[in-house]
Amino acid sequence: MDIKNILVTGKLYNEFKKAINIDSHRQSFRFIDEEIVSSDDLKWADAYVNFKPTANFEFHNIKWVHSLGAGVDSFLYEKKWKDDVLLTRTICSFGQRISQYCLSYYLKDLQKHDLFQKQQKANKWQPITPQLIDGQKTVVYGTGEIGQEIAKLFSSLGMEVFGVSLSGRNKPYFSKVYSTTTEFDLFSETDLLINTLPLTESTDGLFGKKIFDQLNNAVFINVGRGASLIESDLLNSLEKQNIRLAVLDVFKEEPLPKDNLLWQHNNVVITPHISAVTTVEEAVSCFLDTLDRIEKNSELKNDVDPLRGY
Amino acid sequence: MDIKNILVTGKLYNEFKKAINIDSHRQSFRFIDEEIVSSDDLKWADAYVNFKPTANFEFHNIKWVHSLGAGVDSFLYEKKWKDDVLLTRTICSFGQRISQYCLSYYLKDLQKHDLFQKQQKANKWQPITPQLIDGQKTVVYGTGEIGQEIAKLFSSLGMEVFGVSLSGRNKPYFSKVYSTTTEFDLFSETDLLINTLPLTESTDGLFGKKIFDQLNNAVFINVGRGASLIESDLLNSLEKQNIRLAVLDVFKEEPLPKDNLLWQHNNVVITPHISAVTTVEEAVSCFLDTLDRIEKNSELKNDVDPLRGY
Repeated sequence: MDIKNILVTGKLYNEFKKAINIDSHRQSFRFIDEEIVSSDDLKWADAYVNFKPTANFEFHNIKWVHSLGAGVDSFLYEKKWKDDVLLTRTICSFGQRISQYCLSYYLKDLQKHDLFQKQQKANKWQPITPQLIDGQKTVVYGTGEIGQEIAKLFSSLGMEVFGVSLSGRNKPYFSKVYSTTTEFDLFSETDLLINTLPLTESTDGLFGKKIFDQLNNAVFINVGRGASLIESDLLNSLEKQNIRLAVLDVFKEEPLPKDNLLWQHNNVVITPHISAVTTVEEAVSCFLDTLDRIEKNSELKNDVDPLRGY
Repeated sequence: MDIKNILVTGKLYNEFKKAINIDSHRQSFRFIDEEIVSSDDLKWADAYVNFKPTANFEFHNIKWVHSLGAGVDSFLYEKKWKDDVLLTRTICSFGQRISQYCLSYYLKDLQKHDLFQKQQKANKWQPITPQLIDGQKTVVYGTGEIGQEIAKLFSSLGMEVFGVSLSGRNKPYFSKVYSTTTEFDLFSETDLLINTLPLTESTDGLFGKKIFDQLNNAVFINVGRGASLIESDLLNSLEKQNIRLAVLDVFKEEPLPKDNLLWQHNNVVITPHISAVTTVEEAVSCFLDTLDRIEKNSELKNDVDPLRGY
């Protein structure tokens, strides 16, 4: 593919400008604040680099869109994609980042950090035995790069890791992978349920009463997309103790509105979408690697199937 | 070794009584509250099972002492051991327990749990990037069973793990092991320092100004023995930011006295000696396994060298 004019915009555009040595590239670059990207800029570009489309986005002559995030729903979900436009995404260390995020909160729970913190505040010495992770069962929705990295880490610690995916195809590090379309009976013995799925028609509102009612005092972690969770169903399940702790990094509306009930719930941990942050260094290196592969017609590792949505 | 009379005392004696089917053993058992163990009980026994010696402890005819904890300093440190008496200790899952304890607190720090918790309390959405564990450097004092289990877990996560031991002999999972008696230059780049050492003459007060002054904004975790740490030196190093966080599970005096300054220090986590709790199930199973090996003259995996002290 022949790329000549690359438009970089969005919150990292300035850092990209500093990090990319444009003299070493045969392409022309425009690094522009998202607010002032004009229709002319978009018409000029044959490549577009950002986390999401600008408000005035049109494809015009754009042949390649590179998403600076791992999720591409802002480009695809409930939107029309143009045939023959290549879509790539940033992957890099997301798998490690998300798996360490998940492990940190699950260990916090098993090791009873909150309880010991409370006792410390009261100068109180009262031994209670933390729980070992070994032998615990987890179900991970999504068996792609990120799901596999989670399965690798958690299984190495002696957990039994089951996967759920559209295809149900077996993948490394999972004891077994189930298909979303078939019946399976896993949840009553699940200690930890993790969602890593992208937002598509089939994952919108997937995590609600139907799944939660089958859980039994489990921990739920959402590092996929906020819209996959029905928040009111989660609050009910916390009440009924189907879920003992929810760790949420993604929300239907971000930033999470000030008046959302989740903020002050005792058994909910809120983090501001940081489990898989794109650092500038990694974003630049992933972008340059992708550009290089496109130039050389090499195989891409981060291309997205727009029809499938991920 | 021929064992006939086994005296079980200390805080688990009652649970041991319930868990051991004495009819299936050819030995006689006495399960007695530590407060009322008499000189006659001690004279009767050829095996003694407890976390520590009773106040009136004498060896008399005792040929085997089985410690219900992993640490045996209460039997050996600044005490006289009798030649030819076998000393064994409880090992079992301590390695896993302690390594998961250490990992949970180190990830809590890297993932900025406290900061996000504070923000959540204020309904505040402010993304900050957590740190990846990959590439961080840790120094573990003690390269025995527990140190090795820590090295295994942390190195599998991409950390570089150095060991320090008396001998300096290389051990699995460590990048390199240094000897306590030689000079080495590791501390200025150390992100995490962990003590797992038993209490002996050479580890009493080992962690103080001399080591701490070389650290640079590191995390210090003590899961060895409290007396190995000079508390006033730790407080100074926290002040000077050689240490940014201390996680302490063991103390010179336990329970930690109410008026100890560590309790309310912002950058100190206090847990009540729970990183390697002996559960009754494990203690019983380890004791029975040791008894079985002694009966059959099989190799022991948990015998202690009283001269070495561990």
